[in-house]
Amino acid sequence: MSTTRRVQVAVVGGGPAGSLLGILLHRAGLNVVVLERRSVEHVRGRIRAGVLEHPSVTMLREHRLADRVDREGIRHEGVVLSDRGDPLRVDFQGLTGHGVVVYGQTELQKDLFAAIEAERVKYLDEVEELALGDVTNRPVELRYRRGGREETLLADVVAGCDGAHGVTADAVPRGVRRTYERYYPFGWLGIMAETAPVHPELIYARHERGFALCSMRHARLSRYYLQAPLDTDLGAWPDDRFWDELRRRIPPAAAERLETGPSIEKSLTPLRSAVGEPMAYGFLALAGDAAHSVPPTGAKGLNLALADVVDLAEVLLEAKDPGPEALQAYSDRALRRVWRAVRFSWWMTTVLHRFPDDGPFAERIQDAELALLRSSVAARRAMAEQYVGILP
Amino acid sequence: MSTTRRVQVAVVGGGPAGSLLGILLHRAGLNVVVLERRSVEHVRGRIRAGVLEHPSVTMLREHRLADRVDREGIRHEGVVLSDRGDPLRVDFQGLTGHGVVVYGQTELQKDLFAAIEAERVKYLDEVEELALGDVTNRPVELRYRRGGREETLLADVVAGCDGAHGVTADAVPRGVRRTYERYYPFGWLGIMAETAPVHPELIYARHERGFALCSMRHARLSRYYLQAPLDTDLGAWPDDRFWDELRRRIPPAAAERLETGPSIEKSLTPLRSAVGEPMAYGFLALAGDAAHSVPPTGAKGLNLALADVVDLAEVLLEAKDPGPEALQAYSDRALRRVWRAVRFSWWMTTVLHRFPDDGPFAERIQDAELALLRSSVAARRAMAEQYVGILP
Repeated sequence: MSTTRRVQVAVVGGGPAGSLLGILLHRAGLNVVVLERRSVEHVRGRIRAGVLEHPSVTMLREHRLADRVDREGIRHEGVVLSDRGDPLRVDFQGLTGHGVVVYGQTELQKDLFAAIEAERVKYLDEVEELALGDVTNRPVELRYRRGGREETLLADVVAGCDGAHGVTADAVPRGVRRTYERYYPFGWLGIMAETAPVHPELIYARHERGFALCSMRHARLSRYYLQAPLDTDLGAWPDDRFWDELRRRIPPAAAERLETGPSIEKSLTPLRSAVGEPMAYGFLALAGDAAHSVPPTGAKGLNLALADVVDLAEVLLEAKDPGPEALQAYSDRALRRVWRAVRFSWWMTTVLHRFPDDGPFAERIQDAELALLRSSVAARRAMAEQYVGILP
Repeated sequence: MSTTRRVQVAVVGGGPAGSLLGILLHRAGLNVVVLERRSVEHVRGRIRAGVLEHPSVTMLREHRLADRVDREGIRHEGVVLSDRGDPLRVDFQGLTGHGVVVYGQTELQKDLFAAIEAERVKYLDEVEELALGDVTNRPVELRYRRGGREETLLADVVAGCDGAHGVTADAVPRGVRRTYERYYPFGWLGIMAETAPVHPELIYARHERGFALCSMRHARLSRYYLQAPLDTDLGAWPDDRFWDELRRRIPPAAAERLETGPSIEKSLTPLRSAVGEPMAYGFLALAGDAAHSVPPTGAKGLNLALADVVDLAEVLLEAKDPGPEALQAYSDRALRRVWRAVRFSWWMTTVLHRFPDDGPFAERIQDAELALLRSSVAARRAMAEQYVGILP
C-alpha cells in the first residue's frame, strides 16, 4: 500500500537547520514537510555544538524562538586564548560591541520541537530508505518507508538539511559538484561532566602536548576536549587520565581550580574542513552540514547551518516561483558567508593545534600569530569580529 | 708581511646594516672597523630592496641620515592588493596614521657611504678570505687578505652583517644554532626599466597565472616582478614577453596604461624564509641577512637589517663591557621583532602566490583571506600596521 502527497517544499533532515527551515516556511504559509530519518527522541538527545554567535541569537529573537536562549543561555563577552599556559583574553564586547551565547544545540533543538508542535509544522520522523528522484525536473519525487509503509512525496523544491552523511548531497552529480576538503591529522577527544566549568569563559589552549578546549553547556555541565591522534582508543582514556592531561595543557591557575568528576559522555571527533560547490542543483538546495563541514574550533557549524536556512527561506519566499535560478542565487550568497567561516575555522585550527609533520618553522609561525594577537588590537578585533560573526 | 690591529667592534659586511652599525658605533666613540669583501663601487651599485617602513625612516632621521630620503624618497600612503584583476586599496595612512617611503637600497647605501667618508668611519673594502677565530674568547681574531697582504684584527665583539652567504653565521656551531626554514616552490622574475611606474602606489597582484608586483624606485624607474618557476630561463623571457605576461596579471585599468621599455636589469630571485636562533654566540652577534631571510613580498628584509643593527648598537653602547650576556639579550629582543616580520612576509607570500601543489582548498582559503581584507577594516588595519612596521 502506498500514499502520495504533494508539497511545495520537502525538507530532508530534521535537525536544527531542517527544523528551523520547516518553521519559517510553515509560518509564511507554504506547504512544507520535514522528513527525519531518526526518531524525535533521538534527535532531541543528540549532543552537538554549544555556541550561538551574535547574528544567530538576533535571528532567533526576530523569529520569536529565543525566549529560553535569552533566559537560560550564558552570555560570553570574550574568550581566553592560552599559549603554552600563558593566557590572553580576547574581549569580544570591547572590540566589537557584541558577544556570543553558550546554549547547547540539544536545548535549541528542544525549543524548535516546541514550536513545531505548537504551530503544527509537519514533521515526520523515522523516515527510512529515503530516495530522491530526478531533482532537475519538477515535481521532485521522494520515496521512503515509514511505519512499514512505502510513501511517495512530490515536492516543488527539496531542501537538503540531512548532514554530512545524508542522501541529498549525493543527488548533485559529481561533474557538477566540486568538493574542497582538508583533513586534519588529529581528532578531539571530548568529555562531558556534571561539574562547574573551570572558567566563566571558554579557554582555547595551544600547548606543546596538543590543543585543549575548556567549554561548557551550563553552570553544572562542562565540556572539555583534548587534541588526540585519530586512532585513539577511548578505553585507554579513563577519566583520571583525561583530567591529568587537561591540567597540563591549560593555564596553571585554571588547572589548580579544575573541578573533576565522572564523565557522562566520552567521544573522539575527527576534524575536517569541506565545502561542496554549488549548494544548489535543479530544484534541490543544500544547507548546513549537507553542504559543508568545519572543524569545531571556530564554533561555526551550527551557526552556519542556521544562517543557511534563513538565507534559503528568504530566497524561497521572495521568488514567486522558486526554481533553479533562485536556488543558484541562494548558493552564491551562502557560499561567500560559508567560505568566510571555513577560513576562520581552518585558521583557528591551524594556529592552535600541534601539527607534528609541519616542522619547526610552522611552529614558530604559530608563536608569531599568537604574539601578533597579543600585541595588535586590530588583529584581536579581526579575530573577535569573526568569532562573534558580525562581518557583512 | 702582516699587521695586527685591535678594535672594540669588528663589523663584518659593509652593506646597509654593517655601514649603519659602523656609523652609529663610531659616532658613540667606539673603535670600530667595517670589513667588506667587495669593492665600494660594487656595494654602491647593488640593486636590492626599495621600501623603507615608517620606523626605519624615523630612525634614519634621528641619526641625521635621512636628508636625501626626505627630499627624494616617495612617500606612499597605501598599497593596492589586486585579486584576479579586482583592486583593493589598503589605506596605510588612514588605518595607522603612517606610511612607507620608496627609496632604493642603492640610494641609502650612497647616503651611508657619504656619512662614512665625511665622518671618517673605518671602512675597509676588498677584504678577502676572511676567517674568524674562536668567538667564545675575547679578543676574537679575524684574519684576512687585503691588497695582497695578510692582516689580523683583534676585536672585543664581532658583528656579523655579511648576509645570507657570509662567513660569520657559520661561526655558530650547529649544535647551538637552529635554523627554521621554508622554501617556496617558485621565484620572482624581475626587471627594472626606465619607464614611469604604472601606478603611484605598489600593486601586489594575485592571479591564477601567478603573482605579480608593480613597484618602483622613482618617477622614471620602474621595478616589476612575476612569479616564475625556479628553473626559469631568463633567455626565454625577452622584454615583450615579460610585459605581455605582466599585463595579464594586473588590474585591466593598470594594464592599459602600462608604459613599457627596454629592461636595464633582469633577474630571477628564489624566495625563502629562514631564521637562525640564537642571533648571538660568545662575542659574535649576527644582524640582517646573516641571521635571517625573508621573501621580498612583505618588503621587510632591509628594514629588519636596519632595526637589528640599531638594537645591537644600543646593547653595545648600554653595556659597560658587552659580552655574551648582553649579546644574548640583543638576540632575544631582536628575535621577537624578526619573527613578527617573518610571519608577515610568509603570510603575504602565502596569500598572494599560486601554489600548484597545495590544491583547490588552499586556493579557496586565499580567496577568503582576500575577501576578509575587503570586508573587515580591522583585518586591513592589522595588515597595514605590519606593513608600515609600527607594532611594538
